[in-house]
Amino acid sequence: MLLRQVRIALTAFVVTVSLLAAGSACAKEFFEISDGELKRPTGYREWMYIGTPLTPNDMNNGKAAFPEFHNVYIDPESWAEWVKSGEFREGTILVKELVSVGSKAAVSGNGYFMGEFIGLEATIKSKKHFPSEPGNWAYFGFSTPDYSSIKATSTKFDTETCNACHQAAAAQDWVFTQYYPVLRAADAERKQEKTQ
Amino acid sequence: MLLRQVRIALTAFVVTVSLLAAGSACAKEFFEISDGELKRPTGYREWMYIGTPLTPNDMNNGKAAFPEFHNVYIDPESWAEWVKSGEFREGTILVKELVSVGSKAAVSGNGYFMGEFIGLEATIKSKKHFPSEPGNWAYFGFSTPDYSSIKATSTKFDTETCNACHQAAAAQDWVFTQYYPVLRAADAERKQEKTQ
Repeated sequence: MLLRQVRIALTAFVVTVSLLAAGSACAKEFFEISDGELKRPTGYREWMYIGTPLTPNDMNNGKAAFPEFHNVYIDPESWAEWVKSGEFREGTILVKELVSVGSKAAVSGNGYFMGEFIGLEATIKSKKHFPSEPGNWAYFGFSTPDYSSIKATSTKFDTETCNACHQAAAAQDWVFTQYYPVLRAADAERKQEKTQ
Repeated sequence: MLLRQVRIALTAFVVTVSLLAAGSACAKEFFEISDGELKRPTGYREWMYIGTPLTPNDMNNGKAAFPEFHNVYIDPESWAEWVKSGEFREGTILVKELVSVGSKAAVSGNGYFMGEFIGLEATIKSKKHFPSEPGNWAYFGFSTPDYSSIKATSTKFDTETCNACHQAAAAQDWVFTQYYPVLRAADAERKQEKTQ
C-alpha cells in the first residue's frame, strides 16, 4: 500500500516537473502590445542587466539625446537564447532606463554617480509584430519631453528616428553589443567552450 | 478510484511545493569562505543589478582608485530581503565588477561607453564570519594591481583600507545607497505601499 502511494506520488511529481519544463520551453513574450501601443514594461530591473552607456548633459552642450546614464536590460528568455546561440530571438525586448547624474564627486574619486530614474525606452525584435521594420526591430519611448514622468503606453517611432541609426552603427543585429560587455563575455565564453 | 489517485497526486504536489518553499526559506549564502579566503564569486552577472558609479582614469589624474565603470550587484536573497525590509541581511554579498572605458563617443553623443571587464571587488556583511568588523562588513579585492587578471581567492582587507571610509561616507549600513537608484526605488515603493 505504501509502495503504491509512493509510486503515485512520484508519478505526480514527474508530471509536475514535466509541466513546469514544458511551460518554460514555450516562447514567452515580456511585453504587451495592443492596437499598436506598447504598454510600459515593468519588472525589467529584475531582468538581465547588460551595460550602462553614459551620455551626460555636460558633455553634450547641456542637452544629451538620452540623458544621462542608460541602464540596459534584456528579458530573461532572450538572455538564455543569447547565451545559447549569440542571437536575438523573435520576441526579444531590450529596455533602456535613463538615470540622471546625481553627483560628480565621491570618496572613490571624481566621476559620474547615479541620481534619479528619469526616462524609459524600449526596443523589440518581432517579425510577427513588425514585419516591415528593417531587422524587425521597432523602437519605443516612454519618456516625456522634459523627462519628468513616464508615459503609460507608446507607439513605435518612425523607422528613420531610431532604426536607421541602429542599423548603420550597431555591431550586431541592430544592437550596440560593442558597449554591452555582459553580452560580449557570454559570446566569448560560448565560443571558447565550442573549441574545447 | 480516480478520485483517490487525484487526491494522492495533489498531496504529493503540495508536499513537493512545500519542500521547495521550505528550501528557499533557508538563508542561503552566495559565497564560499575557507581558511579566511573568499573564493572568487561567479554567476553574479545574473544577480540583481543595483547601479554603476563611474570614476574614469581621465578624471582622476590617470589613476582612479577603482577604474572605471563599477557595475554593482546584490545576491538575489539579499535583494528579496531588501525589497521586504530595506535592510541588508546577515550574509549579504555585494559584488563590484570593474569595466574599462572603451570609447568616449558614439552616435548617441559624447560620454563614456563600456569596454572590457578588468577587475572584481566584493563586500560581505556577516556577524558569523566577521564579528570584529565594524557593521560586520568585510571587503575583498580580486583585481591584480595592473588590472590584467582576476585572482582566484582573496583575504579581507584591513578595516582601515575600506570599512572606515564606507562607515564614514555611505548613506546606509556601510553601503553607498545614495548612488544605487535601484535600491532607493525599491525602498520608496515599500514605504509608499505601507502608507496606503
